[in-house]
Amino acid sequence: MTYDERTARVALTRVLEPGDELGGRWLREFGAVEVVRRLVEGREPLPGASAQRWEGLLGRASRMRPERDLAEAEDAGARFICPGEPQWPAQLDDLGDARPTGLWVRGRPSLRIWALRSVAVVGARACTEYGAHVAATLGAGLAERGWVVVSGGAYGVDGAAHRGALGAGGATVAVLACGVDRPYPRGHTELITRIAEQGLVIGELPPGEHPTPSRFILRNRVIAALTRGTVVVEAAYRSGALVTARAAARLGRFTIGVPGPVTSGLSAGVHELLRGDAVLVSDAAEVAELVGDIGELAPDRRGPVLPRDLLDPGTGRVLAALPARGLAAADEVARGAGTTTDEAVGRLYELRALGFVERHGDGWKLTRQAMISVRGDRSGR
Amino acid sequence: MTYDERTARVALTRVLEPGDELGGRWLREFGAVEVVRRLVEGREPLPGASAQRWEGLLGRASRMRPERDLAEAEDAGARFICPGEPQWPAQLDDLGDARPTGLWVRGRPSLRIWALRSVAVVGARACTEYGAHVAATLGAGLAERGWVVVSGGAYGVDGAAHRGALGAGGATVAVLACGVDRPYPRGHTELITRIAEQGLVIGELPPGEHPTPSRFILRNRVIAALTRGTVVVEAAYRSGALVTARAAARLGRFTIGVPGPVTSGLSAGVHELLRGDAVLVSDAAEVAELVGDIGELAPDRRGPVLPRDLLDPGTGRVLAALPARGLAAADEVARGAGTTTDEAVGRLYELRALGFVERHGDGWKLTRQAMISVRGDRSGR
Repeated sequence: MTYDERTARVALTRVLEPGDELGGRWLREFGAVEVVRRLVEGREPLPGASAQRWEGLLGRASRMRPERDLAEAEDAGARFICPGEPQWPAQLDDLGDARPTGLWVRGRPSLRIWALRSVAVVGARACTEYGAHVAATLGAGLAERGWVVVSGGAYGVDGAAHRGALGAGGATVAVLACGVDRPYPRGHTELITRIAEQGLVIGELPPGEHPTPSRFILRNRVIAALTRGTVVVEAAYRSGALVTARAAARLGRFTIGVPGPVTSGLSAGVHELLRGDAVLVSDAAEVAELVGDIGELAPDRRGPVLPRDLLDPGTGRVLAALPARGLAAADEVARGAGTTTDEAVGRLYELRALGFVERHGDGWKLTRQAMISVRGDRSGR
Repeated sequence: MTYDERTARVALTRVLEPGDELGGRWLREFGAVEVVRRLVEGREPLPGASAQRWEGLLGRASRMRPERDLAEAEDAGARFICPGEPQWPAQLDDLGDARPTGLWVRGRPSLRIWALRSVAVVGARACTEYGAHVAATLGAGLAERGWVVVSGGAYGVDGAAHRGALGAGGATVAVLACGVDRPYPRGHTELITRIAEQGLVIGELPPGEHPTPSRFILRNRVIAALTRGTVVVEAAYRSGALVTARAAARLGRFTIGVPGPVTSGLSAGVHELLRGDAVLVSDAAEVAELVGDIGELAPDRRGPVLPRDLLDPGTGRVLAALPARGLAAADEVARGAGTTTDEAVGRLYELRALGFVERHGDGWKLTRQAMISVRGDRSGR
């Protein structure tokens, strides 16, 4: 049994736990095919693994089944992407040897492009009404400003942030600590299904895998690495959301906190962050101003980052469906491009991340730079 | 009519508005006696004053009546202190030419010594229940840690902070924007009277003067300059409390904010400060840690800053009434020193500021350094 590099990585998502830096080193030094070969043959232990660890890995390797995983994933509407592939978000490479072996992805939009313009909103599961309100308002406000809202799909703050983004006709990504075919928590099955339809549901674990406490913690590094900054809404001391925030800080991303009453234990962790290097924000406008590049403050000065010819054809059709002047609602654009509103929204956020369009309230319009480029193309024909 | 320098300053508190930097320059360049002489004679305008301004000053100068002011102040239990006098808090000299001409003071304790170890707690008049709760808790917590709580005597946060300190048997100073004989606001007559009995009520304006909007604003520079740091509890955008905080920052004092819900307009001003250089705190312990010197973190390393022989005799009796070991309540100390509890508390906070004693909960004890010094004295007899 020999796999190509990609299939070997699929196989290894069942063997290497998320964030296993020794495994990451093996992948970097030997390549996935060689790592799989040694695990299958079992005769040449990989360097740095204790005997016990090696035994454990051999046990897990006996459960590798990449073709079946890929087939099961496909049934669940998921695909697999690996480092270096066109869909791979390059930001994750900042994790070094803790970089995911690969990602399982449900949903149509390009994770790579969405990640360019994404912000994480995370916080307590058992949040207060205040935390839920703030997270939902932030999710909606970021979506309205053309930002992709990334979170963990959990109860409380995470769910409120996802719902806020969805409710504003926005883009959102749920990063799960289990197989993307099995929504967790169960009570969020409907929400996660909706995210997969309107946005993206991603994770490191192959179909059928369950979350564990360490998987939750390690999932957080993916949220932190994927995004330009992490906003913590409510977090008690020692909350997992603080793990995400600290990972963001280590990775050079913005660490951001929404304060709350000092009388609330659920704001204590956020306040602790804010007494360090995290930046205090009160609303989505302040988040956008912080994580946005110069273009955020002076949109005229940012043009598209990609020539129109290199756009995916479906995305090109959505771009072409935008009026030369003024705003259009996502469903109008969808009609013009002959596609569904969900797909049009996904592509509009890609176009936003690439600098072709802007969102203003519920409408979308070409950026000034894109307008010039479209006019140029038209006059040239 | 010629006055001595001190009486001339008394007279000028009725002529120069608080914070008048031109007046401050005259005082520095010519001395108060000469400034009064020119105002009385009216023939030699002081430099830099427009004709209109000079006329205005001459009009006000006709109302100078220092002896009557001193007599009225005495009737109201107030005294006058000027720059350079033993009771003058040297911190106010940091205000440069905007330094008060002098201060009217009601209450027994030494303003100079209390100011050494004081923190301002200020905020919105129309505060929320949350703001009032936080201010009262901070006032009490700072008092329990041996800190003098300074505020403006206003409704809302100010009043709650004063009451918190008083309720904890602590030391508090109200800085008024009117004559110290006329409590403002009227609804705080009882509170301000209590502060004058248990602490200090001070102001720049002579007896009978009313507050005005500009006097409120300029009063804030005194609060900022007097204290080691200013804590803002609740403040809307453009609140007067932010003026105090910014003055504190300009003077190199700590600027500190207590966050609140981002959904509350009364926390918006505080959050604006916290997005700048202000430090976020959640409780009195964090304030004390911040504004305290090294002695706050390692009390053993700080000895008294003054030889015992130089203490005021009444303060010396209170020091002598403390047990060689262990804690004593303020009323026990008062009994031992043959004085009232209010007076003993006032002197205990002076001794705290000077490094002789510490407060632990409701009890007072000698610092280690003071214990050694007391033992030394005793064995030497």
